Amino acid sequence: MAKEKKLVESITSMSEDFAQWYTDVVKKAELVEYSNVRGCMIIRPNGYAIWENIQKELDRRFKETGVENVYMPMFIPESLLQKEKDHVEGFAPEVAWVTQGGLETLPERLCVRPTSETLFCDFYSRIIQSHRDLPKLYNQWCSVVRWEKTTRPFLRSAEFLWQEGHTAHATEEEAEARTIQMLNVYADFCEEELAIPVIKGRKTDKEKFAGAHSTYTIEALMHDGKALQSGTSHNFGDGFAKAFDIQYSDSQNQLQYVHQTSWGMSTRIIGALIMVHGDDSGLKLPPRIAPVQAMVIPISQRKEGVMEKAASLRDVLKEAGIRVKLDDSDKSPGWKFSEQEMRGIPIRVEIGPKDMEQNQAVIVRRDTREKLVVSLDELAEKAKEILDCIQKDMLARAKEHLKEHTYVARDYEEFKKIVAEKPGFVKMMWCGDEACELKIKEDTTATSRCMPFEQEQITDVCPVCGKPAKTMVYWGKAY
Amino acid sequence: MAKEKKLVESITSMSEDFAQWYTDVVKKAELVEYSNVRGCMIIRPNGYAIWENIQKELDRRFKETGVENVYMPMFIPESLLQKEKDHVEGFAPEVAWVTQGGLETLPERLCVRPTSETLFCDFYSRIIQSHRDLPKLYNQWCSVVRWEKTTRPFLRSAEFLWQEGHTAHATEEEAEARTIQMLNVYADFCEEELAIPVIKGRKTDKEKFAGAHSTYTIEALMHDGKALQSGTSHNFGDGFAKAFDIQYSDSQNQLQYVHQTSWGMSTRIIGALIMVHGDDSGLKLPPRIAPVQAMVIPISQRKEGVMEKAASLRDVLKEAGIRVKLDDSDKSPGWKFSEQEMRGIPIRVEIGPKDMEQNQAVIVRRDTREKLVVSLDELAEKAKEILDCIQKDMLARAKEHLKEHTYVARDYEEFKKIVAEKPGFVKMMWCGDEACELKIKEDTTATSRCMPFEQEQITDVCPVCGKPAKTMVYWGKAY
Ligand SMILES: [Zn+2]
Ligand SMILES: [Zn+2]
Repeated sequence: MAKEKKLVESITSMSEDFAQWYTDVVKKAELVEYSNVRGCMIIRPNGYAIWENIQKELDRRFKETGVENVYMPMFIPESLLQKEKDHVEGFAPEVAWVTQGGLETLPERLCVRPTSETLFCDFYSRIIQSHRDLPKLYNQWCSVVRWEKTTRPFLRSAEFLWQEGHTAHATEEEAEARTIQMLNVYADFCEEELAIPVIKGRKTDKEKFAGAHSTYTIEALMHDGKALQSGTSHNFGDGFAKAFDIQYSDSQNQLQYVHQTSWGMSTRIIGALIMVHGDDSGLKLPPRIAPVQAMVIPISQRKEGVMEKAASLRDVLKEAGIRVKLDDSDKSPGWKFSEQEMRGIPIRVEIGPKDMEQNQAVIVRRDTREKLVVSLDELAEKAKEILDCIQKDMLARAKEHLKEHTYVARDYEEFKKIVAEKPGFVKMMWCGDEACELKIKEDTTATSRCMPFEQEQITDVCPVCGKPAKTMVYWGKAY
Repeated sequence: MAKEKKLVESITSMSEDFAQWYTDVVKKAELVEYSNVRGCMIIRPNGYAIWENIQKELDRRFKETGVENVYMPMFIPESLLQKEKDHVEGFAPEVAWVTQGGLETLPERLCVRPTSETLFCDFYSRIIQSHRDLPKLYNQWCSVVRWEKTTRPFLRSAEFLWQEGHTAHATEEEAEARTIQMLNVYADFCEEELAIPVIKGRKTDKEKFAGAHSTYTIEALMHDGKALQSGTSHNFGDGFAKAFDIQYSDSQNQLQYVHQTSWGMSTRIIGALIMVHGDDSGLKLPPRIAPVQAMVIPISQRKEGVMEKAASLRDVLKEAGIRVKLDDSDKSPGWKFSEQEMRGIPIRVEIGPKDMEQNQAVIVRRDTREKLVVSLDELAEKAKEILDCIQKDMLARAKEHLKEHTYVARDYEEFKKIVAEKPGFVKMMWCGDEACELKIKEDTTATSRCMPFEQEQITDVCPVCGKPAKTMVYWGKAY
């Protein structure tokens, strides 16, 4: 029994130390293993299978909007990176440089891509000639490198996996529409698949992407009340096009610059998945994204017929399209329950001799621990209903948490008190001056998360400086 | 009309200059674009969609054998690479080195992975303790870098995409069985999906992978009679396990070294696809791997109802599960035909006013150019039949080509004459001495492709040195 409790005992509780709880879950659920390579993580099968499901679902949504996948080189010559001033300033300090190839020193340093705007621009400058070539709607799935000083699995690492979409359009309006469209794809994906509600909005100039005219973001609230930027979509206007000379001849045969966008979501979103839904028993995966949706666990498995029955339940569930596994190892049921909970598998199906006598099984929900006795004649049907129900309930709970942890500040003292005492988002008006943004960060460590699309007029003035308020901002501490 | 012919005219014919034909097809079919980064290619949507289909199908086959996907860091610290002597000697001369991170010089150089044996070994040494942890059957999809001097799209480039499987087993026998199993997965995949027949066999010691006990290979024959190594599977024995100290306690609680394998297939296989099936009109894709299987092309598309009818045929075919597109651009039918042929789309469906009157469409096969008049009432059914037929016929033709270009040499003069005059494989006996292998390479530039599983006793002695023959070898010039 001592041995059996170990798996859960070794996790720090969320309330005691949230950061340590996160690290424990990531490790115990076998999502990640640390590597010998500074700041780089190994994504283990349990973690990578989540990423594969994210990829599959996002990729489907991208393709429905006409996006095509490509693959660009992983290296960027230094001269190419330098073509757009703001961009190079933003990224150069945090990239890794290749200086030797084979046995030779390279004539020009190559950086390992931190993002691929410059490569796509170079590519577009060569393949776009006419308005008939537009729009270009390309995306790539790849890994990128940013030489971060401090790293945490999924949240911040020297190398991470992501997708980066890059589009080129004939008009400003079309580029802006695509920027918003992709932000909505991300937001819908988070809500529908990950059961994570997000705030959609625009970044302030201070927080926008290096080289972008405007950056849009989706911000999610973690269990500890901190924000996580979960996906971004940038409108570059024609800035990059001018730097890289990407022109097309329009229908009147006039040369025009293209308008560009880029948008990305990364393995960081797995961090959100953990921190929005998890609890002191481990991970809690929404059924739609869970690599394994149901674990069949035999009780008294040595008793005659139990293992065979458990295998047949697995087959029935599989047949019904549920991603299911059977834990037929020689561990005790208690140990298996703990493992299934740690890994966040949405339901377990218990079947033992007594259940068999009564032609039933017990389905236990990971999210609520509720036990449901189900007739074997309608097992698959009920399992599906329960999975749907879990998906809905998880989103509802996350929405409730977001609502409960979103505060309103009418004056700056109130703001500071909330930030100090109540983790979450704080809605407060802003004059639009970076000085106020900087002051807030200095005083409280909270940053502007976004200027939400859904605006409210809380006060008429900026509570920090007293000047007229321009916009409502979501403020918060962030990962 | 002059303009319309351009697409095809600009391709060099295969018989005139095969290498130039290859380059032309790759470019005109828009598979690849050259980049500003030395030796790196941009894989365009038409090329990447082929790779996505290859990935999907290979990944499915891997998972059926119990393989799980992971992701390892892209960097390898120099000290880690050096742990296995043969391995580092094989790869160090052709890797790219990162020496700077952010604004600092790194204390230790990191190489950009040319392959990940060392990372997997390091990982396995930490997660394998007991025989219960075995086997480990991991794979990753990623890009790797090898600093090649001369490069050609897909065939040889500084960066390429691949999968690399790495497994750890309790016993020698199990590792050997897995090595062969994965070679068979590759061979079956090539035959069934790519319509490419391959020769399965073992590499000579001279040609085996750096650090492997034995390397198995599948070798395909290109249209020009040159061989292409299309996939390899390596048995490492316990060599890496000893270098990296990967031990497990067996059921008697004794420490044992694991036995390891690795196996890989890369974007190189797209080069094979082009060079096995293509012709002077461009690419020819087997239906199972083709991103677009059918292109609907309206004839006299301005005539009333034609475009609507063409769109409805597209919908009917799509409904039936065929990957289909409609070319509704304002180009002429002749231009569209050329484009569809260049891109290797297996069938086109022509529909015009006269066809509509007779409730029919014309299906044209890309492989044979055969035209088939089909009633619209059975369009989807017929299209499916024709696609199946093309897949079978393409494999049969490739098999025939392989058979016709495989020769037998009984003495060395005959061998040299064949190699000089008849491009293809030459079967000849070998004594097993590297000296004879080197002599053949020096005299003819042909290399040992493999010692095939299917052996024949052609002569009793090695025709080069006269010593007793040990094995039959496939020899040939290779990419
Ligand atoms: Zn202010
Ligand atoms: Zn010999």
